[in-house]
Amino acid sequence: MMYETYDNEILNEFRGISHPRLGVVGGGQLAKMTALAALQLGCEVIVLERNNYSPAAQLATQSLVGNWDDPEALIKLASKTDVVSIENEFLDPDALEIIEKSGRPLYPSTATLRRIQDKLIQKQTLTEVGLETPRYAPVTRAQDIVTFAEASGWPVVLKTRRNGYDGNGNFTVSGAAEVSAAWRALDGNQRALYVEEFCEFTKELATIITRRIDGSVVQYPVVETVQSNHICHLVRAPAPVSGEIAKQAAHRALKAIEAIDGVGSFGVEMFLTRDGRVMINELAPRVHNSGHYTIDACVCSQFENHVRAVMGWPLGSPEMVSPVAVMVNLLGSRRGPGAPSGRDRALGVSGAHVHIYGKAMSGSGRKMGHITAVGKNLDEAEQITRQAADLIQFGVSK
Amino acid sequence: MMYETYDNEILNEFRGISHPRLGVVGGGQLAKMTALAALQLGCEVIVLERNNYSPAAQLATQSLVGNWDDPEALIKLASKTDVVSIENEFLDPDALEIIEKSGRPLYPSTATLRRIQDKLIQKQTLTEVGLETPRYAPVTRAQDIVTFAEASGWPVVLKTRRNGYDGNGNFTVSGAAEVSAAWRALDGNQRALYVEEFCEFTKELATIITRRIDGSVVQYPVVETVQSNHICHLVRAPAPVSGEIAKQAAHRALKAIEAIDGVGSFGVEMFLTRDGRVMINELAPRVHNSGHYTIDACVCSQFENHVRAVMGWPLGSPEMVSPVAVMVNLLGSRRGPGAPSGRDRALGVSGAHVHIYGKAMSGSGRKMGHITAVGKNLDEAEQITRQAADLIQFGVSK
Repeated sequence: MMYETYDNEILNEFRGISHPRLGVVGGGQLAKMTALAALQLGCEVIVLERNNYSPAAQLATQSLVGNWDDPEALIKLASKTDVVSIENEFLDPDALEIIEKSGRPLYPSTATLRRIQDKLIQKQTLTEVGLETPRYAPVTRAQDIVTFAEASGWPVVLKTRRNGYDGNGNFTVSGAAEVSAAWRALDGNQRALYVEEFCEFTKELATIITRRIDGSVVQYPVVETVQSNHICHLVRAPAPVSGEIAKQAAHRALKAIEAIDGVGSFGVEMFLTRDGRVMINELAPRVHNSGHYTIDACVCSQFENHVRAVMGWPLGSPEMVSPVAVMVNLLGSRRGPGAPSGRDRALGVSGAHVHIYGKAMSGSGRKMGHITAVGKNLDEAEQITRQAADLIQFGVSK
Repeated sequence: MMYETYDNEILNEFRGISHPRLGVVGGGQLAKMTALAALQLGCEVIVLERNNYSPAAQLATQSLVGNWDDPEALIKLASKTDVVSIENEFLDPDALEIIEKSGRPLYPSTATLRRIQDKLIQKQTLTEVGLETPRYAPVTRAQDIVTFAEASGWPVVLKTRRNGYDGNGNFTVSGAAEVSAAWRALDGNQRALYVEEFCEFTKELATIITRRIDGSVVQYPVVETVQSNHICHLVRAPAPVSGEIAKQAAHRALKAIEAIDGVGSFGVEMFLTRDGRVMINELAPRVHNSGHYTIDACVCSQFENHVRAVMGWPLGSPEMVSPVAVMVNLLGSRRGPGAPSGRDRALGVSGAHVHIYGKAMSGSGRKMGHITAVGKNLDEAEQITRQAADLIQFGVSK
């Protein structure tokens, strides 16, 4: 405003000395949505990404370009911020430790990351506190798979201990004859693997938990996630399951996040088995796709609560503002520009909340945005999201 | 994500060729909240401000530093964007015209600005379409005030035709003896003035209207605004008035925005007189303080709808997601750092949505943030907002 003109010298006196500064390693859509929440609360946001074209770089107060495991880049990020967080689970804790050693808080901590990142250790951590997971065993040679399967029954799932995502790093082995192929496919001679029983589930469930360093938590509703080609496709909130099962899932998820001493927002993926048991599938040390609906459907989103938690501020209410919400991911259909065609038509669907991540380019199956609708019943909300999502395409010429 | 690494050459191929780009002249809190909405929809945002310390500069994709009436800066902004908008009503239409001449759309247009900026012309425009306003008259010398008052009765309000805001540029004249003082106070020999009857109102009402270039509109609920020292202090949504009065207000507000051919989100300030009439007080050619509650309380906020309107996209629903909402402004108490003390305590008030603008510095009475609460009844929501607002202070040392 005209009347808010101050001369630059006065401004310089106050410039940058006061706003809380959040650093994020990674600049994708999770960092972007976290940044949107942080900026609303009056934080500055500084992002470290390997290029300056990332979704979060578009709105970060400052954008640093560097590798995630480059000590110099990490120290630079730490020195410019009050707290550092991360947006993905593949970061190297050995590299990140330099942030903690510099005296800057890192949430989640490298200790938490180490309990999650190696999925065998993650499962052992959960087992130690009495949480049920699919049965599993370490494997050091192909024969170990057969030994495990003879005890637990075929099929089994061979998995990489690190860096698996969205179905990559998994191989379902139906019988002894497929063991060598699986071993080769996952490069067992080079990569650390483990084996898991094949879990027949009727539903996949998930929940977001935000936890502060003092142990206080908020817990979002348990939701149903529907995968398509191993990528989260649709989320129904709350999950259409009995109150008893939702309660069980919420209880176990909380126990899991406590077991890893998590600080920040975490995604907990679970299986609901045929016989009505809830088993922890996997933990994500970050805001999670299954919680994107919270932006439009909850009093305080998983992103805002993540910011509150890592800044040491009180947590906000995870309550939903409407009875239900449905979220659908928008995936790229092929390589092409990052802007979609049909955005305007999707915005014409009443009740559809359209989120476009602003990536520089689309790729096949790449997460490019999402749509949320809230409402009174799941069918209605799902219809709105699907209608809007069907109108948007990424990777085609407009 | 690790699996989303593309080399920079490929990224460059797609970089910047596709995302819709919104330009905003001005970088204050209104530009910031507009930018947050635009970024969520996948736009890039480019801001022109006189320094690079503004709230919106913290999150703009790009921040240009230059004067708002500098043709070179304006053309640069236009050349980098698809559409240009503004965040304040004091911009010079003669300067802005260069944007329109360059072929870039400007919303609101300079024609709309010209119908609003000079408050005498604004009132005449409203009168022409049959809308009731307080009685008014141009004045060219002090004696004209007396002539007007003799017909309409004392007191009257002497006002500057341009650049008045938040009570500045107004002088209430109780009788003929005060005319010279008023004339001097508002610098009548140098500045264009007009005179208005003193309007005794029981309530101030306001509403936000978003209008597209094709004339389609959405209209937010009519709210009550409570001023304190001439600055908007509290907003109650919806206004606690009869349905008949709300309907009358909504109808007149719409007629006013149509009269100025507005494109984008507009604030309409109204008086409810003792005898139950609704009179237009003033129009604002921009998102408006009385509509900040829409971020947390409506399906689609005034900011998102502004972006949709100026980008030519369909408008979203202005419906409230809860029965009521209350918003309280957070004003600076004195000059000091732009970050508040007590933010953490305010975040501890359940149901309080805390918005901190991230200004470089606080000033006495300066708008530094706001708090919104939604709920089932106004008293409850007001209590929450006041409780949270009382915990936050700007301009004191922490």
